[in-house]
Amino acid sequence: MTKLKIGFLHPGAMGISLAATVGNTGHTVYWVSEGRSEATRQRAESQNLHDAGTLEALCDTCTVIVSICPPHAAEDVARKVLACGFRGLYLDANAISVERTERIARQMEDSGASFVDGSVIGGPAWEPGRTWLYLAGPQAPEIADCFAAGPLETALLGGDIGKAAAIKMCFAAYTKGTSALLAAILATAEASGVREALEHQWSRTGSEFAAQTRQRVQQVTAKAWRFAGEMEEIDATFRSAGVPGGFHSAAAEIYRRLAPFKDAEAPPELDAVLNTLLRH
Amino acid sequence: MTKLKIGFLHPGAMGISLAATVGNTGHTVYWVSEGRSEATRQRAESQNLHDAGTLEALCDTCTVIVSICPPHAAEDVARKVLACGFRGLYLDANAISVERTERIARQMEDSGASFVDGSVIGGPAWEPGRTWLYLAGPQAPEIADCFAAGPLETALLGGDIGKAAAIKMCFAAYTKGTSALLAAILATAEASGVREALEHQWSRTGSEFAAQTRQRVQQVTAKAWRFAGEMEEIDATFRSAGVPGGFHSAAAEIYRRLAPFKDAEAPPELDAVLNTLLRH
Repeated sequence: MTKLKIGFLHPGAMGISLAATVGNTGHTVYWVSEGRSEATRQRAESQNLHDAGTLEALCDTCTVIVSICPPHAAEDVARKVLACGFRGLYLDANAISVERTERIARQMEDSGASFVDGSVIGGPAWEPGRTWLYLAGPQAPEIADCFAAGPLETALLGGDIGKAAAIKMCFAAYTKGTSALLAAILATAEASGVREALEHQWSRTGSEFAAQTRQRVQQVTAKAWRFAGEMEEIDATFRSAGVPGGFHSAAAEIYRRLAPFKDAEAPPELDAVLNTLLRH
Repeated sequence: MTKLKIGFLHPGAMGISLAATVGNTGHTVYWVSEGRSEATRQRAESQNLHDAGTLEALCDTCTVIVSICPPHAAEDVARKVLACGFRGLYLDANAISVERTERIARQMEDSGASFVDGSVIGGPAWEPGRTWLYLAGPQAPEIADCFAAGPLETALLGGDIGKAAAIKMCFAAYTKGTSALLAAILATAEASGVREALEHQWSRTGSEFAAQTRQRVQQVTAKAWRFAGEMEEIDATFRSAGVPGGFHSAAAEIYRRLAPFKDAEAPPELDAVLNTLLRH
């Protein structure tokens, strides 16, 4: 195996776990401290990532760059990497629409860089069999090799750019879409004076659904700030496929309203969540 | 107990089970054959309902009328009952929005009839502990008495008209909303060439989710023609509560596209369902 220099933009909670798998596989992992938070520095140092200092330096040093960031930042990261003259192999592993993926791919290829479409399903990858990096595009196998040691798993979807984006959009459409829907339902029930009755009905058949729903809605608030953008990407993916949008533009609005809970130290009380949804 | 004459508009699959509970309680149940199908006649006769012949005759004969029909027909049924001079106790048990419920209530009360807001959660009520008639309004206890013998269960939500409508809207928002969402997801995955991969991902943790989803999407097609209207009612209820609409206007469009499966003899193949969704 050739030992490669691989750059990560940026080692957040998910990104650092991907970087760890690349390190396990024997490659050298770089990151960029410029403009990043102290929390990111701590994550990077905990996995012995090398600080390239600046994006320019990282682009000069690395032959592979992995973009893993909130959906709204994906195109900006790609543009900046190209602006630094990067012409190596670029993996976009973000939760973005098929159309946006294809657009970034064209920009990369027009500039002489290579592009692989990727997406991650599952939480941060610290255990085998729990998190999958889906990969699509002619050079997807080269990227899969970079992650061969695990614990992150890879899954190849063939040569067509967009398929890794599509599976992520479809998967998250249910998980994150239904969390938003349940928040909307509880808020509507609260506004209509039937929340307690609804929770009782949900519990009639002895299921845990009511309790699980409360917990799910409380816990999702911490990530709402970045789920809003992902919901817009899913909405765009549905519409491009000829399927009615609307489910996820509504979900995006739910998450936008919940975005202020981003830095809460503990999950908020359910009443606080519903009041925030209804105050708009 | 006073033996009452209670009219049902109309004894469909759900309505006939409510009528059976009223009959079990000792009341005399009427229906109207005029303009109804042979299937409705067979249901009515199977439970020994009395044929009033015409709506006028039913309104003259009965002191209580129960409206249970597809959502889009609810206001029309109420208007016709008032036009026949009915001034008794009227239960609207339909899956309609809070606003539409309040509008029918006002029309009834302005004309000197009494109104109870009702809704049914669960399938046709042939077993105890499976189906609930929610009731709201000052005369809700009188209606509950009409159903005292079961197997349909009743649940009182107090004196405020709209609460029975609201709990139904919130409950169905999840059950029927997620069936539509899953259909939309499978169609998007199909159009993007990742349906098999998505189903495989859903199955990775050993869950039955993929198989259950396929079955759910195939089976819901038979009822799609009437779920479309119910989704619009839910959308209106969310918006009136100050919660983002969109989830259920999209669900309504999914069900409209699937409406042609109404009279299918067996659930269609999944490919046929997805092709129908994508052909629009």
